[in-house]
This record gives sequence, structure tokens and C-alpha cells, in this order.
Amino acid sequence: MDRHELIKKLAVKNESKVVLLVMDGIGDLPIDGKTPLMAAKTPNLDALAKEADLGQTIPVLQGITPGSGPGHLGLFGYDPLKYQIGRGILEALGGDIEVGKDDLVARANFATLKGDVIVDRRAGRPATEVSSEVVKKLGEAIKEIDGVKISVYPGKEHRFVVKFTAPGLDERISDADPQKEGKEIVWSEALVPEAESTAKVVNSFLKRVREVLKEEPEMNFALLRGFSKHPVLPTFDEVYKMKAAAIATYPMYRGLAKLVGMNVVETGTTLSDEIETLGNIWNEYDFFFVHVKKTDSYGEDGNFEKKVKVIEEVDTLLPEILALNPDVIVVTGDHSTPAKMKAHSWHPVPFMIRSNFSRSGLSEHFNEYECARGTLGNIMALDVVPLMMAHALRLEKYGA
Amino acid sequence: MDRHELIKKLAVKNESKVVLLVMDGIGDLPIDGKTPLMAAKTPNLDALAKEADLGQTIPVLQGITPGSGPGHLGLFGYDPLKYQIGRGILEALGGDIEVGKDDLVARANFATLKGDVIVDRRAGRPATEVSSEVVKKLGEAIKEIDGVKISVYPGKEHRFVVKFTAPGLDERISDADPQKEGKEIVWSEALVPEAESTAKVVNSFLKRVREVLKEEPEMNFALLRGFSKHPVLPTFDEVYKMKAAAIATYPMYRGLAKLVGMNVVETGTTLSDEIETLGNIWNEYDFFFVHVKKTDSYGEDGNFEKKVKVIEEVDTLLPEILALNPDVIVVTGDHSTPAKMKAHSWHPVPFMIRSNFSRSGLSEHFNEYECARGTLGNIMALDVVPLMMAHALRLEKYGA
Repeated sequence: MDRHELIKKLAVKNESKVVLLVMDGIGDLPIDGKTPLMAAKTPNLDALAKEADLGQTIPVLQGITPGSGPGHLGLFGYDPLKYQIGRGILEALGGDIEVGKDDLVARANFATLKGDVIVDRRAGRPATEVSSEVVKKLGEAIKEIDGVKISVYPGKEHRFVVKFTAPGLDERISDADPQKEGKEIVWSEALVPEAESTAKVVNSFLKRVREVLKEEPEMNFALLRGFSKHPVLPTFDEVYKMKAAAIATYPMYRGLAKLVGMNVVETGTTLSDEIETLGNIWNEYDFFFVHVKKTDSYGEDGNFEKKVKVIEEVDTLLPEILALNPDVIVVTGDHSTPAKMKAHSWHPVPFMIRSNFSRSGLSEHFNEYECARGTLGNIMALDVVPLMMAHALRLEKYGA
Repeated sequence: MDRHELIKKLAVKNESKVVLLVMDGIGDLPIDGKTPLMAAKTPNLDALAKEADLGQTIPVLQGITPGSGPGHLGLFGYDPLKYQIGRGILEALGGDIEVGKDDLVARANFATLKGDVIVDRRAGRPATEVSSEVVKKLGEAIKEIDGVKISVYPGKEHRFVVKFTAPGLDERISDADPQKEGKEIVWSEALVPEAESTAKVVNSFLKRVREVLKEEPEMNFALLRGFSKHPVLPTFDEVYKMKAAAIATYPMYRGLAKLVGMNVVETGTTLSDEIETLGNIWNEYDFFFVHVKKTDSYGEDGNFEKKVKVIEEVDTLLPEILALNPDVIVVTGDHSTPAKMKAHSWHPVPFMIRSNFSRSGLSEHFNEYECARGTLGNIMALDVVPLMMAHALRLEKYGA
């Protein structure tokens, strides 16, 4: 019996309210002996820590640094080694592009072609405003190929997204990208016989792109990779019997929540907006995923001080969440983003869970070191939702 | 996707130098409140602990006591439950016997036969010098059977190793050993049809042994078990993209390193020789496995004081390793060998990892108790190499 089968079998409904507050990239490394969580003034998080079970999560496996996709899937209880989300889909999710079951999406780059040779894989890194115009031009010129609907969406600089829509498209085709400059055009090839007609459509699209853009000095061709369809995941409600809402300001996280069947609700652009939204929808859902993006952004920027400030902002708003009286609240991250590394990392992630059934009283603060010595020890990110359900008394006993 | 596939996919090369220092059997139990690691004066290990992430490894599974084979395979990142190394191979490795792809090896005992009955499975435990002479006699008398080359190698007391060499030999044959005294000779049987000719050769060999040794008063027969061929393991370089060197004074550990494709370099007999070797080959490799045997030997002897002395010797030499400026250094063991148990045990093993990306600052000493409360918590031995690679920035992010 796998994990999802077990949970499905044991899950029961009740009236409890369950909050998963994710501070993206929260885990960090010490600078002068303090991590951002230690440097921040967090009276409310610390008060919660006193009432909570602390531990640390392993996002995928020890030593593995997750991207946002695997990081969140793991937290949602979906094995990130089992459910792999294609690059095209993630790019589409990040661009707030709807992907349905008949859609095949790819990440695209504008490239510069001389003869049949790719001389610049990024077409001189055009400004986003400039490349957006070219995407528009493409969209107007190419609307359909062999009965397959074509949609193009602008991205940053040289990047854009292509969506092919028709029943029966197959994602098992190779990248149309030589990966290196100075090489000739590489056409997409079917990796299985069933994908042959899809590869043909992709290659016809590329030929049309070449025609349409032939007068462009730099953006005169495109490279496509990461072809992917919308993955079929068991839904959150199906596995956990909880009606889930996602509150996130960034498209990528709204998209990831949508992938597992959460209801993505409209919200504003600030953390304060998110908390207000939470209050507004409190009676409509069982499970609330609240995503804080900026802890990760400042980690990626190497901006320790701003990361501290975001943590303090979360701390200030925490009482508003607690005032809603959640039966269970978890505060954690999807991975670590140490400011000194300016990147995601593999380090374990601080975690705490507070309910009426916490083995509380060991910890005084919420930070990496207290979490490492908490009552829960190391847990897999996959364990988080089952633990939340247990604390919400939403899981029956296994076996008699 | 399994662990090796994942690592292979994410592994990248760089210039980093990575050291795995294994103090065999280092974990212990307290006597009068102190383990050998606590009783030893270890200023250098303790200084390293202050800069490191501490934790403890589980060699196989909680409660499972590993032999040297599974203990080291786990540490090298090879699941010891998936890659099982036959006793014949381990005996050969321990005897520094080369095993190639056409070789089939078995552990052998001299036994005493009366009529067709095994009356002593150890032939009165002869002295090694005496049994070695009989092995020599066997080797001279039996060089080949049905086109299969026979080689015999002396071992301790009643033990020796037999190597059968020919293409197509099959290890799936049963032991030629009644397991109990007072029983008749048991012949080897093919466990699969493809192994029938191999079983026949083995039984012919045993009949020849009986003839050759018929005048011996006690060592007049042999029992063979643990038939095994050289296992095919993915190589260290293939999985991790690191060129690895093994520095070990004992044949068993050199052999285990060779099994996973490490380059086993020549060294002397002392720890000091090993460290000198490390310095000499520093520029030629990426990954260095340095094995300290005596911590285990004295644990097995129940000699707490001598185990303490070996730890102090390691501590004294540690600065020489650190002077090479490894990007990542791990200090750990392959299992525990508590002096009071005089045997390997299942207890978690002290572990620390030091790099520029350590979540350091929590621990003051390197010992069982500080490790149990370290920043890493419990990890599987299997996690060690991936963690080392992560700290060496040799693993790319998983997913976007």
C-alpha cells in the first residue's frame, strides 16, 4: 500500500481548520552566528514555538536541492521523485498560463540563426518589451498548424512559452535545441512511435517561425524544449478529503497548487492582502495553503537584512491568522535559500506544528537550531500533510 | 526514479576536494558515563565539530548490525539491501585475492571426515601455519578440473578460499556443507538449470580434495560455502562523477573500495602513512576515502583504553588533513563497535560534515551525544555521499 492509498483509506472529514503557512526558502545558514530567523525579532513565532512540536523537513532526499516544483509537491504530500513536473508546465504555471488536458507546452527561446546555424541561443538577450512585440507578431501570424491550435505567451527577455492544443498530442518528443551555439538547427524527434505526429507539428511550427521572423535581425528563430502536458495527479480532496484553498501572490505557486487540485483564490499582492483573503474565505475551506514569497526572493538576492524584515512582517501578521483559531497550524518552508549562497539549497527546513495535541514545551524559539533539536526530529516534506491531518483528528487508526 | 539515477542526473564536476574519513566501528556505549570519543582528548576533532554539521548515521536500518561489507557499501552510497556481496567475495577481498569477471569464489573450511560423515567442521582448528601447508599441497595437486582453473589461498586456522576460473560459471549453487557435525557429506546443487555444470565442477573438486588429503589425520576434507562471483556495481565515477581514491591499510576495505570502482592506492601500514599518501595523491583525485581500522579492532577486543588512544592518534593527525584544505570533510564510521560488546552493533554512528555551507555553531565536541543533538539529526549512511556532493556544490538543483 503506498502513502496516498493509506491516507485515502484512513482520511475522515470533520470541522477542523488547518493552515499551512509556507515561508518560501526560509531555512538559512548563520552569518556571525545568526540565521535570519535568529536575527529577526519574532515574539509571535517564538510564542507559537513554545506551544508547538518543532522539527525539520527534508524536501526530497538529504543533499538534494529542490526547485519550487518538487519543493511544493513534497510539502503537499506528493512524492517529488514520483510526480515529475515538466519544465514547460512549470514555465506555463509561472506565467499564469492555463494548461488543460489537450495542451502541450514548451519553453521557448528566441535565437539568432545564420544560415542553418544557431549563432546565439538567446538572440542577444532582448529587452522584455521588445521580445513581447515579436511574440505578438508570431501569435498573429501562426494560429494553427495541421488542426493544432497554436498559442504563444511572452516571457522575460528572450524567453516565451508555446502552447499546442489538440486532442492526442504526446509529450514524448525531444527538445528542438542544439544546446550549444555554433551548431545547426535540431528538429524535434518522436521518442516513441505514438508521438510522431506531434513532433511533425512542432517542426512545422518552427519552420513557420523562421518564415515569419526572417526579417528580424536577431530574434529570427526559436528553440523549444521541455515539452510537457498537464500531469495527472490525484487531487488533494481525493487523497485527503479536505477542501483546500491556495493563497499566493506569485503565479508559479498558484499554478503548483492548481496542479494538485487546490482552489486558487484571488488575492492582492502583499502578505497583508493574503491574510485578509484568508479571513474572508475562512468558512469555505478546510485546508489553507498560504504562501510567502519574499523570504526566498531576498535569500536569492543574498539580502540577509531584507529576509529578516520579511520574517518580522510575517511575525507581525501571525496573530491575525491565530485569531481565526485554526485547529492546526504549520509554519515551515519548501526548502532553504541561504542568503550567503544566493540560491536554493539542500539544508533541512525549520518546521513547527501547533494543535491541541502538540508535544510542546521543549522549544523557546522558531529557528534552524531549535528545530534541529525539536520533539519531531527530521521528517520528510511528504510527512507534513499527514501530520497536519493527524493533529486535526482527520486520520483514523490504522488497523485494529 | 531511484537514488542513483537521481544523483547521476544531477551530478556535475568541479574542482572541489572531498574527504571521507572513516574511523571503523567508532560509535560506542558509555562506560562510567563516557564513550571512547568522550574519554579521548580530541581538541582538533572538537574544533572541527564547532564548524560542522553534526548528526548520526543509520548504517542499514535501525536495529540492524552491519558487517564491514554492508557498512561500507552504505557509506559509499550503495544500498546494502540492494547490493548484496557474497561471503566468498568478502573472504577473497579480505585475503587480498583478485577476483575477475570469470572467477567464482567460495569460503572453505578444512573438515574431518570419517567414512562419509563430517565429524569436525573445523578439522580441530589447526594452526594457520599448519593449514597453510595443506592449502599449498592442494594447490599443487589440483590445478584444473574440466577446463576450469582452480586456485586455493590460505586463510586463518581451518579457513581458506577456493577460486574457480572459467567463462560462464554460475554462482547460483547451494553450499557444500551440512552445517552440522555428525552429518554426511552434502554436495553442491544447482539452484537454476544454468548452474548445473558449475555444481558438477565444484563436486568434482571436492572428490579430488578427498583423494589428495586422504592421508591427513584431521584436514582430510573441505566444506565450501558462499559461492559468489564479482558483483557488478555501478562505478563511483559513473554515479557521482568524482574520481575516487581509497587509502586503507587492510585488504577488506581496499577490496570494498575496489568493488565500487575506486582507485586503491598503495600506502604503508600506519595511519601516519595513510595521511602521507593522501598528501601525495591530493592533486590526482576528487574524492578520498581514508580508512582507520584500529578503532574497530580495539572495539572488538573490548579494549576501551586502546580505542581511546587510536582516536587521539587520529585527532593528532587531523590537522595534516585539514592543511590540504578539503572543500568538504566528513568524519564518521561505518558502524558502532562498542568495547563493552566486543562486537559490531546497530547503534547510530557519530557523523560530522564541514564545508563553507555547514549549519555550524551548535556543537562543541565530536561524540555520540553531541551528534545525536546535532543540526542534521539522523541520516541514512546512504545519504552521506549525496550530502558531501551537495556541500561540494557538485549537485544541481532538482526540478525548476
